Amino acid sequence: MKVRPVAWHEGVVAVLDQTQLPERVVVEEFDDWRGVAEAIRAMKVRGAPAIGIAAAYGLALAARQIDAPTMDAFRAEFERVCQAFAQTRPTAVNLFGAIERMQRVVAHAQTPEEARARLLTEAQAIQQEDYEADLALARHGAALLPEGARVLTICNTGALATGGIGTALGIIRVAYAQGKLAHVYVCETRPRWQGLRLTAWELLQEGIPFEVIADGAAGLLMAQGNVDAVITGADRIAANGDTANKIGTYTLAVLAHYHGVPLYVAAPESTIDPTTPEGVHIPIEQRDPSEITHVGGVWVAPVGTPAYNPAFDITPASLISAIITEKGVYRPPYRFGETPATPSSAARS
Amino acid sequence: MKVRPVAWHEGVVAVLDQTQLPERVVVEEFDDWRGVAEAIRAMKVRGAPAIGIAAAYGLALAARQIDAPTMDAFRAEFERVCQAFAQTRPTAVNLFGAIERMQRVVAHAQTPEEARARLLTEAQAIQQEDYEADLALARHGAALLPEGARVLTICNTGALATGGIGTALGIIRVAYAQGKLAHVYVCETRPRWQGLRLTAWELLQEGIPFEVIADGAAGLLMAQGNVDAVITGADRIAANGDTANKIGTYTLAVLAHYHGVPLYVAAPESTIDPTTPEGVHIPIEQRDPSEITHVGGVWVAPVGTPAYNPAFDITPASLISAIITEKGVYRPPYRFGETPATPSSAARS
Repeated sequence: MKVRPVAWHEGVVAVLDQTQLPERVVVEEFDDWRGVAEAIRAMKVRGAPAIGIAAAYGLALAARQIDAPTMDAFRAEFERVCQAFAQTRPTAVNLFGAIERMQRVVAHAQTPEEARARLLTEAQAIQQEDYEADLALARHGAALLPEGARVLTICNTGALATGGIGTALGIIRVAYAQGKLAHVYVCETRPRWQGLRLTAWELLQEGIPFEVIADGAAGLLMAQGNVDAVITGADRIAANGDTANKIGTYTLAVLAHYHGVPLYVAAPESTIDPTTPEGVHIPIEQRDPSEITHVGGVWVAPVGTPAYNPAFDITPASLISAIITEKGVYRPPYRFGETPATPSSAARS
Repeated sequence: MKVRPVAWHEGVVAVLDQTQLPERVVVEEFDDWRGVAEAIRAMKVRGAPAIGIAAAYGLALAARQIDAPTMDAFRAEFERVCQAFAQTRPTAVNLFGAIERMQRVVAHAQTPEEARARLLTEAQAIQQEDYEADLALARHGAALLPEGARVLTICNTGALATGGIGTALGIIRVAYAQGKLAHVYVCETRPRWQGLRLTAWELLQEGIPFEVIADGAAGLLMAQGNVDAVITGADRIAANGDTANKIGTYTLAVLAHYHGVPLYVAAPESTIDPTTPEGVHIPIEQRDPSEITHVGGVWVAPVGTPAYNPAFDITPASLISAIITEKGVYRPPYRFGETPATPSSAARS
């Protein structure tokens, strides 16, 4: 793995500043938990799992900074730091999950010394679990691809967004390592260019052959027979399999359906939301029109141009060939309570 | 008409410098034909019909500058100017058509004075014919739209590209003037942003309500039921109706087909190429990857990012609901030798 958004090195938390990518590769090293919290708040770390890992390491770092004579005093101070981390990104689910795991460690520790050691172990466990989950997902997904696969993807679903090798991009990494991936086409992903900027950057680091395309060129590629599979991530998956993801995903799904190309959604189990029965219940976030009309703060459109800028769209389950998680491969009709198939195990047996 | 790419004012040719749009609205006025030729060469005028009109006015201007004692001397000098114009944009069909019409005028004139007068009349006739053809096309197209129509379009097919009110955008203008157009959605049209920059500019001038969208958002709009028709231009139409147009058009065609939304192609009769039997015979021009990876000459992608940048795609006739020209409305199966329907005449009778 050449791309690591967060790492722990001997008492220091190293954060890759994603706000400066791809122009500059800046790794900031923090020996004070406040720096880590600020890095999360300033979105230097992005992607829910990576945020959780950063917070966990930040708390492990804080535990070393807390100079408390008693365990009660330690717990009180640690709780204040937890609250500070909780306020960095108030909507990030993984952030709260990580904080709760660290709080449980402190609740069970007998001494500050024990707490410090166990907190670091717990943070490392969170990162390791995310890495292994990504890897399991990637192996399940790679098993679905044919030899010499040409894959189309959108947005950034890579190591920059997760605690491991990524979801859709994790599948691409593993398929490439297995020698079965021939080429990646990356939708540039307007308006925020996560494909053009972040996915391209990750693929360059890994030496995986790829080309970026304008989002509108996906249809031509499929008509030419140059796409064997479309693989996307997911922001949220409803109980029936309807999937919210980056704007443009639904367009790819319709194109894939029309051309008989499989569309695979790759996401952690935690993305499946059993409380949302169908995609129609997911509200579509509207973002600032300036994301379309401006580049680098400067008007590209004529001044005053109005824009409609939905952040994501909903792909109905009927257009999704399979949903791949760390547990396995779900096929339609989607019943997430049941145990999914694990093609990668079958392939190895 | 608030947008005029080329105009003649009392011995002066006025050219709207499209290379400076939309940041600056600069109209250059030439009293020397060499300035007009240079404006064509430097792509200050774009769009095949507008180039033909500019060349015609440039030749009318040259005729006034030629100080020849005899008609033979006049013809020799005029021919040199024609050759100079022919070399400004060697692949522009309308350019050569306009030059040939002007040459015929000179061939039949008895005196330089007569030639000068008739050349100006001919140039004005070329512009008037283009304007009337656009208007006829627009009326045929507008007749196909329902009341309160919400139309999706791509690229720039407006007055900036033709000698009149535009093709697809001409239909939008006329439908708006008729009170039957509610809203226009404009694909930004990556990588060159003709929608975001040029179509948005024209619509702002006309006060027509619109929003620009990221190209990938077209699917969501249709899924929401917010698009009543897709209208596009055409670069070339094969004898069977297969249509080459700006990259992204085919993606819109598949989306429209899937959602039961009609797709209309609007183009002059001259775009129909009877020597090309099917779309598969049209080679796809590949353009510089830097159009995708750079903005304003600066890398937006990571340095070294490869890109696949086809200039256009082919929409098969089977996905096109109708092809609209100045002559009328062709429906599949397309037989361009036959007389098309003229719904606008029927609507008025």
